[in-house]
Amino acid sequence: MTDLLVTVGDLTITDRFYATRSMTESLASPLSAEDQTVQSMADVSPTKWHRAHTTWFFETFLLTPNLAGYRPFHPDFAYLFNSYYEGVGARYPRHDRGQLSRPGINEIAEYRAHVDHAMATLLEDPACGSCTGLVELGIQHEQQHQELLLMDIKHVLSRNPLLPAYDAVRLPKPSTASAPTWTHHPEGTYQLGHSAPGFCFDNELPRHREYVDAFAMADQPVTCGEWLAFMEDGGYHRPELWLSDGWATVQAEGWEHPLYWLESDGFWLEFTLGGPTPLNPAQPVCHISYYEADAFARWAGARLPTEVEWEVAAAGRPLTGQFLDHTKLHPTPVAGSPTGTTPFGNIWQWTSSAYSPYPGFESAPGAVGEYNGKFMVNQYVLRGGSCVTPPDHIRATYRNFFPPSARWAFSGLRTARNG
Amino acid sequence: MTDLLVTVGDLTITDRFYATRSMTESLASPLSAEDQTVQSMADVSPTKWHRAHTTWFFETFLLTPNLAGYRPFHPDFAYLFNSYYEGVGARYPRHDRGQLSRPGINEIAEYRAHVDHAMATLLEDPACGSCTGLVELGIQHEQQHQELLLMDIKHVLSRNPLLPAYDAVRLPKPSTASAPTWTHHPEGTYQLGHSAPGFCFDNELPRHREYVDAFAMADQPVTCGEWLAFMEDGGYHRPELWLSDGWATVQAEGWEHPLYWLESDGFWLEFTLGGPTPLNPAQPVCHISYYEADAFARWAGARLPTEVEWEVAAAGRPLTGQFLDHTKLHPTPVAGSPTGTTPFGNIWQWTSSAYSPYPGFESAPGAVGEYNGKFMVNQYVLRGGSCVTPPDHIRATYRNFFPPSARWAFSGLRTARNG
Amino acid sequence: MTDLLVTVGDLTITDRFYATRSMTESLASPLSAEDQTVQSMADVSPTKWHRAHTTWFFETFLLTPNLAGYRPFHPDFAYLFNSYYEGVGARYPRHDRGQLSRPGINEIAEYRAHVDHAMATLLEDPACGSCTGLVELGIQHEQQHQELLLMDIKHVLSRNPLLPAYDAVRLPKPSTASAPTWTHHPEGTYQLGHSAPGFCFDNELPRHREYVDAFAMADQPVTCGEWLAFMEDGGYHRPELWLSDGWATVQAEGWEHPLYWLESDGFWLEFTLGGPTPLNPAQPVCHISYYEADAFARWAGARLPTEVEWEVAAAGRPLTGQFLDHTKLHPTPVAGSPTGTTPFGNIWQWTSSAYSPYPGFESAPGAVGEYNGKFMVNQYVLRGGSCVTPPDHIRATYRNFFPPSARWAFSGLRTARNG
Amino acid sequence: MTDLLVTVGDLTITDRFYATRSMTESLASPLSAEDQTVQSMADVSPTKWHRAHTTWFFETFLLTPNLAGYRPFHPDFAYLFNSYYEGVGARYPRHDRGQLSRPGINEIAEYRAHVDHAMATLLEDPACGSCTGLVELGIQHEQQHQELLLMDIKHVLSRNPLLPAYDAVRLPKPSTASAPTWTHHPEGTYQLGHSAPGFCFDNELPRHREYVDAFAMADQPVTCGEWLAFMEDGGYHRPELWLSDGWATVQAEGWEHPLYWLESDGFWLEFTLGGPTPLNPAQPVCHISYYEADAFARWAGARLPTEVEWEVAAAGRPLTGQFLDHTKLHPTPVAGSPTGTTPFGNIWQWTSSAYSPYPGFESAPGAVGEYNGKFMVNQYVLRGGSCVTPPDHIRATYRNFFPPSARWAFSGLRTARNG
Repeated sequence: MTDLLVTVGDLTITDRFYATRSMTESLASPLSAEDQTVQSMADVSPTKWHRAHTTWFFETFLLTPNLAGYRPFHPDFAYLFNSYYEGVGARYPRHDRGQLSRPGINEIAEYRAHVDHAMATLLEDPACGSCTGLVELGIQHEQQHQELLLMDIKHVLSRNPLLPAYDAVRLPKPSTASAPTWTHHPEGTYQLGHSAPGFCFDNELPRHREYVDAFAMADQPVTCGEWLAFMEDGGYHRPELWLSDGWATVQAEGWEHPLYWLESDGFWLEFTLGGPTPLNPAQPVCHISYYEADAFARWAGARLPTEVEWEVAAAGRPLTGQFLDHTKLHPTPVAGSPTGTTPFGNIWQWTSSAYSPYPGFESAPGAVGEYNGKFMVNQYVLRGGSCVTPPDHIRATYRNFFPPSARWAFSGLRTARNG
Repeated sequence: MTDLLVTVGDLTITDRFYATRSMTESLASPLSAEDQTVQSMADVSPTKWHRAHTTWFFETFLLTPNLAGYRPFHPDFAYLFNSYYEGVGARYPRHDRGQLSRPGINEIAEYRAHVDHAMATLLEDPACGSCTGLVELGIQHEQQHQELLLMDIKHVLSRNPLLPAYDAVRLPKPSTASAPTWTHHPEGTYQLGHSAPGFCFDNELPRHREYVDAFAMADQPVTCGEWLAFMEDGGYHRPELWLSDGWATVQAEGWEHPLYWLESDGFWLEFTLGGPTPLNPAQPVCHISYYEADAFARWAGARLPTEVEWEVAAAGRPLTGQFLDHTKLHPTPVAGSPTGTTPFGNIWQWTSSAYSPYPGFESAPGAVGEYNGKFMVNQYVLRGGSCVTPPDHIRATYRNFFPPSARWAFSGLRTARNG
Repeated sequence: MTDLLVTVGDLTITDRFYATRSMTESLASPLSAEDQTVQSMADVSPTKWHRAHTTWFFETFLLTPNLAGYRPFHPDFAYLFNSYYEGVGARYPRHDRGQLSRPGINEIAEYRAHVDHAMATLLEDPACGSCTGLVELGIQHEQQHQELLLMDIKHVLSRNPLLPAYDAVRLPKPSTASAPTWTHHPEGTYQLGHSAPGFCFDNELPRHREYVDAFAMADQPVTCGEWLAFMEDGGYHRPELWLSDGWATVQAEGWEHPLYWLESDGFWLEFTLGGPTPLNPAQPVCHISYYEADAFARWAGARLPTEVEWEVAAAGRPLTGQFLDHTKLHPTPVAGSPTGTTPFGNIWQWTSSAYSPYPGFESAPGAVGEYNGKFMVNQYVLRGGSCVTPPDHIRATYRNFFPPSARWAFSGLRTARNG
Repeated sequence: MTDLLVTVGDLTITDRFYATRSMTESLASPLSAEDQTVQSMADVSPTKWHRAHTTWFFETFLLTPNLAGYRPFHPDFAYLFNSYYEGVGARYPRHDRGQLSRPGINEIAEYRAHVDHAMATLLEDPACGSCTGLVELGIQHEQQHQELLLMDIKHVLSRNPLLPAYDAVRLPKPSTASAPTWTHHPEGTYQLGHSAPGFCFDNELPRHREYVDAFAMADQPVTCGEWLAFMEDGGYHRPELWLSDGWATVQAEGWEHPLYWLESDGFWLEFTLGGPTPLNPAQPVCHISYYEADAFARWAGARLPTEVEWEVAAAGRPLTGQFLDHTKLHPTPVAGSPTGTTPFGNIWQWTSSAYSPYPGFESAPGAVGEYNGKFMVNQYVLRGGSCVTPPDHIRATYRNFFPPSARWAFSGLRTARNG
């Protein structure tokens, strides 16, 4: 993983644009043309599609409307690489993205270079009033796709009987975790949502008040060792622990353990971006669905926190944690970690909150307004960022979201309790 | 509809038990053996199944554990008529309920008589400590199935090209609604959830505090006339009005109007439990999904209320409205209604709140505890009761819930706004 | 089964019309309204649908075109009870026939009486030139549906956990079969297809020549005892015995034995129209698919006969056998049977011949021409008739046909060998 | 298409082995790594899979059992590249072949070289008695996959909105066909099946007799111009022309024309391996299903020939025609063709014969015996070879087969008539 250089700090937006664009190419670089073409399920996109779609975003929302004389790289790419924006026309079906052998990875590299070159002109044009905000959005968007690219290629490679590694990764030796500690928070009416200067997504707004009862929250994520205890206690076979839809999913899918766990001769392995590796009991459990997180918490005599509780507990904590720049590409034990106990990094943490608009939420006008609001149904909020999240892409107010059955994100949990 | 006699008032629990049991049989009485056998989709249960399942509830949770020497009516009925209780053993698959020709309606009548007879003994037994609570729960459960029975048979009959009526129903002549009025509510921290004496479901507890911003809420439901305006303005063809999952559903299902609306030679009809009838513009719109309610509200420049806002607005209002005892079996216009403007009755009202546990929620122990908690995912809350809800089965704190794509409930909406 | 009176012999067509119509009602008479309403899979039709559809045939093809002043019983029945005739307009979807609670069984009885009454006039009208042929076709058609009615209700009842009987049936005690005997047939060019006077279906024509190599054919059907030996030898678990599509079906469906066999405490039972009964080793095996018949024959070192071979072997044999008039409604052992060894009755026998037109085949013009020809793809021919075939509805040239995965017909096999 | 060199003639088996292996690599050479990875439907295999699977055949059936000290190239390839041979162990699911990014095309090239190198030793070993037959089978098998490779990549590229060409192809200018001529054949008992020296597949044996009525057969295939007339006469909208399963397929799939036809501004184009090209009315129609061929023949007042008739008509004709070595990769008009009117080449011709074993057919023992016999159900026979069939891979007795709904083969038709 020697070529992964994540640049963070006080950079101009132009510098950040090029750093982000370059990072995406670094993330794709260990992958062959074949690797970049495969789509292993409808939720997954091929690597080359991520590279093209993030480029399409700048072409569609920045260059075409704002750069005089700009010629789109290819007339059909607007159709091929639109993800879900109804406002900018038809799009190629999501579940068929793995059907596209063309454009190949070299043509996509040319597409990226073409757009990057044109963006240089636009980034120096002081007349483009709305540009800075949109460039910032494009950077944030591409950072989201960097995490998706890694989530997706992990799924692609995991389905191959050869279990190939994405890249060489050095993980800590298996160890044992100590018991979790708890922090108590008093009842009260809290201010929540984004307020600091700097970028945030529309779904973090407006800042607003919420009444919260007293609660306690575990400082550390649930570990693989604790998950093994849940499994050994029949966790996947006891309907009383599960939501009804969760139990139906467990039975329909035949779930017996988290995604990417493998049993071999009585030993547990985990498939990581570095290939199969022995399961580490001290490591935060990862790649679990909302249903599993909820069932575990019930089994443990606890519950999931609401997203409000999570944010109350995280407010004011430093934004340190195991992110993409640590180049582990896998969660690591809290004990012995340089970042110590922190709400951030390692694994996204499921909350019990359905993804809904904050009171007073407003979408931006136009196609860009489709960014978040239209997904506010049938999903649950996750908080905190993970080991594959770019380090400058997380906030205490950041709201990630997935359907309750999704497992291919780097998702785990911390538990909470009343009082 | 002459044989529909709904008994309300100050009755003993024994009286209420028999009144409820008798009401179920009254509701089934207009239906032939064939009508009572059909299952028109997986969500629908045959009428005879409802009659048997409500009986099974008393047999399983009251008679078998508490009545010495009780002999179950038939050894296989525990398997056939369990709905979803994992704690009491295996059950016949829900989507195959329409496959069962036996037991026939006469044998089910015998089953009901057998259980009613045995219940007489139990209801007089002062030693059964937990019985009163369970009998009350059984009554409430059977009342829920009375509404389901009518929802379900409406769906069954609607799928028949002959469009047969369930029974004769007298509906008001088509008229025009006046513009809705709005009531404003100040911001504040409110107490919510059940607190009065008397029965409530576990999902209405515990009473707890919520902070609410100032809001306004329409006093009247959205009407069919307003819905026609939405349709004429392209409501079902404009993706920008819809949640992403809603838009996908509209396209997959080919929705162009509410369920049960029919166009005939340029006129709109609505299929009711009294058969097809001309659409009444003044009548509250009914049989719409959460997705449609949400899209309409966005089109109207408003939004759905949260369930907290709904309850704040309904608190302290008298429990009057057009319920099952009005024997219309269809929503009727507010103007000219004897109950006037009321939050209750006519149609269930979608809220924007995902169905979640209240802070501090606890399920009851044992199989009865499966009643509500395990469904708290992937559903949205509806409030207020409908024209097919038994009148003594509603409260300001009552939480009904359905998946966002469901349309066969008597579901409509009132809109809300900030400030 | 006391009320089953099958009338055979030298009757006028009018007598035969009424005898056939009456027989259908006899077959339906043991069934409740609920029983007659259920459709247990797409291939199955409800009993009341069979009663109505056979009536529709006479109304559509005889009364409406030929009887002056005839008024159809109900304007929508043409839509509801058309099975597959494209030439006479739209039709209600086959897989939704179980959705129809109306018309109920009493209204269908009135429909039958209305048509029977009108047919009396037509049957006496010497002016209707084409009528005799169409009445004959209508009778033959209704006889086919008599067999289907029994096949279908057996499937319906078998899916009910209560395993109810259609009617009381007296079956012989379990016994042991003796080894099969073989009959050899020399090579030669044979005349095949219908030639005798009397009715035949279009698919039995024209009579034509076929060259056939020498072959031998078992005189008796394969028995349940032989099938148990196949099962015990791993028959359902050895892919080398199966056609590729057959093996895929075995695995997808989880087949381990013929349809309707049940294991209970180590004993084998068979569900019959008389309810569950101990498996009789001497009885012909029944309710097997083409795939199973083919695999068994391969396992036994034999093969299925072609339909040409079957007809060569059956030519000139008397039309005796265990048919519907024996009122067993289940295959019975050959040994001790009053009909002895015969190619006819007991079970339909799969042949290795895909269902194709004979050389020179021509469909009749008009909608009636859709009777057979359009099904000549993806099906295999069965010969001989079964225990639920009306006795005057079989010929040595009769061609029945089902898809190779179908098992709900009374289908078994006799094996053949080269030379 | 300059690098396509098909070698035919009097070569040793060793020469033919290397020529065939080399040809496969030539056919793959215009394709990128991405092109070779995609699977566009379950029936299609990725190019790189064809390259590996044909190699696996030699490794599994020749090298491993017969070459002392042979080391398989990779222990998992036996699992990944087995197509359907139950007798040699488990295999990777067919519909997931497009999920495999690894091994990549370079590793597969190494695999091919490894096996080719080892084959050199085996081919010189006189002790391997069964080798010659198996090498011959391996060559024939690889030739079949050469045609499949082209069929499959055509489908892959056709699904890409960019409509990329496989390679540059020079097709004749659109022209008009003259009316077809007919050849009459007398009734008689004919000898059919393979008898000449040289290789044939097991399904062409044994040679046997069949009685055939007098018939006439068109000398030329049905053209695109004739097909347009069928379309303009409502061919795809008239159920009376279709088999019942065919009509259901037309409606379910929305077929309005042959696969790969495109309408653009009122003009018809056809997607070819050279990209989109104007439709040529004189060209044989191609990429039609059995259902379409059958419906066309009925519309034209004719019928499909049986495979026996086809073989009678083709017997003794020279094996010339437009095959793969003509490098058109698309059917071309008969008029002006150097090969003139011939039963062979251009397009496979559907017959009305279900694919069945010949009288006396025997499979080879062992896994190789799974080659043909187990597919003898639910498929129809095609005869004659196509423009993508290797020229030394066809015979008058050659039996190709596909399910009646398949359209991605180069399949067309010639019509026949009685007498």
